[in-house]
Amino acid sequence: MIGAVNVLWVLAHPEPRSLNGFLATEGQRALRAEGHEVEVSDLWAMGWNPVVDAAGYAHDPAQRFQVAAAAKLAHESGALSADVRAEQEKIDRADAIVVQFPLWWFGMPAVLKGWFDRVWLQGYAYGLRGPDGEWIGYGDGFLAGKRALVVVTAGGPAWSYGERGIHGAVGELLFPLQHGTLFYAGAEVLPPVVISGADRFTAEEGERAAAELRERLRAMPTAEPIPYRTQNGGDYGDDLVLRPDVAPGSTGLGAHLARRPGA
Amino acid sequence: MIGAVNVLWVLAHPEPRSLNGFLATEGQRALRAEGHEVEVSDLWAMGWNPVVDAAGYAHDPAQRFQVAAAAKLAHESGALSADVRAEQEKIDRADAIVVQFPLWWFGMPAVLKGWFDRVWLQGYAYGLRGPDGEWIGYGDGFLAGKRALVVVTAGGPAWSYGERGIHGAVGELLFPLQHGTLFYAGAEVLPPVVISGADRFTAEEGERAAAELRERLRAMPTAEPIPYRTQNGGDYGDDLVLRPDVAPGSTGLGAHLARRPGA
Repeated sequence: MIGAVNVLWVLAHPEPRSLNGFLATEGQRALRAEGHEVEVSDLWAMGWNPVVDAAGYAHDPAQRFQVAAAAKLAHESGALSADVRAEQEKIDRADAIVVQFPLWWFGMPAVLKGWFDRVWLQGYAYGLRGPDGEWIGYGDGFLAGKRALVVVTAGGPAWSYGERGIHGAVGELLFPLQHGTLFYAGAEVLPPVVISGADRFTAEEGERAAAELRERLRAMPTAEPIPYRTQNGGDYGDDLVLRPDVAPGSTGLGAHLARRPGA
Repeated sequence: MIGAVNVLWVLAHPEPRSLNGFLATEGQRALRAEGHEVEVSDLWAMGWNPVVDAAGYAHDPAQRFQVAAAAKLAHESGALSADVRAEQEKIDRADAIVVQFPLWWFGMPAVLKGWFDRVWLQGYAYGLRGPDGEWIGYGDGFLAGKRALVVVTAGGPAWSYGERGIHGAVGELLFPLQHGTLFYAGAEVLPPVVISGADRFTAEEGERAAAELRERLRAMPTAEPIPYRTQNGGDYGDDLVLRPDVAPGSTGLGAHLARRPGA
């Protein structure tokens, strides 16, 4: 992605007058000023329903509800609810996706988790095969060629989310989203923008955070993605386990990085 | 917890006729057969609302909505919505909490994440001080003296969630819940029950999973918890970072374990 592109900005915060609301406004303005198109899914403002249910997939309630299969069938038969289809169309139009939220209990607010649960369904976001019939994922998928950037605010100080901080390193807390969801789907996932100490922000600190965000957005087309290992790149065996000669003896989420980020 | 106790079973699956529904029924029956009391929060069946909003905390919409502060104020002034209070009362009555869900995008379904977002609020579940005015968390908190057990089903085979499996080790994927939420709150968190390969279960495999679950529930009062390091036990400095002489050079989520589980 070079030049003017389409960006989908998915925002999950209930209060526009918050630090998150301010950062979203500033970030979107900066993208537009660079000539990019920005679509916004402001989940709280939209009243997004985050709960998977049979009705949303036009599933016959008399039959056992197998979530993945029912979603796939609805997707293929055009029976998906309109709100889910609208989000899929936004994703399809986008060249890059920004996912912004406050870290609540070290993860996404429910309304955002349920955006993935409902929209990223089997047959659309996973369970896909490549041209030779092989299963694809982790480096190839429906987001191939797109970039993704996670923007989070966190209450505690930066070091408490550092590599030896008590909460766990923020990059590992975000692993289910950045690796298991966005990179799984084939996106090039950029290092996250992490705004720490957000509980007690002054206006000046807010401005500094906005400046950092603008800088990171400006670099989005060219920045180096997180170097996660790809599923079909040779590092994993057919059993999806790291081959013994790859990072021998290494365990933990860091083993799935081909090198230290930035190194 | 020894002898007959109260167990709160929080279940998040939309279909009672599923493997999760079967395991929940079997697990609850086994607990009752041992003389325990079981309360159930079946979130889909209850129509649980997982989305934090100002109205649920009786917050004046003309004022900026600061989530944590508004929740704390509502909690202290008795203005919390009845559904949140009912869940807090169940937690308060429980000696042990089971949290059961299918792993969706490597985390909790939104309805369950939103049970934590809405119920585990500031002044009830965090932002608490000990008898000497010290901040407490990670090994001490409102769940001190209670036990917690996470029960998850996962679609892929066990090895793909192993310590070198492509999805990441399941214990690390569950770190935000098991460490950042349950252990933070002071619970003794038992190693999770992980039912892999759940996508294509035969009745016989379901029976085997139920037998394993029953066995783990029977051992719940006496089993060894995950050996997470405690916040105030000397391993962390006042900055909440591991002291240099603790697991020197170690990074990654595993550094927060005092030893390998089971070792």
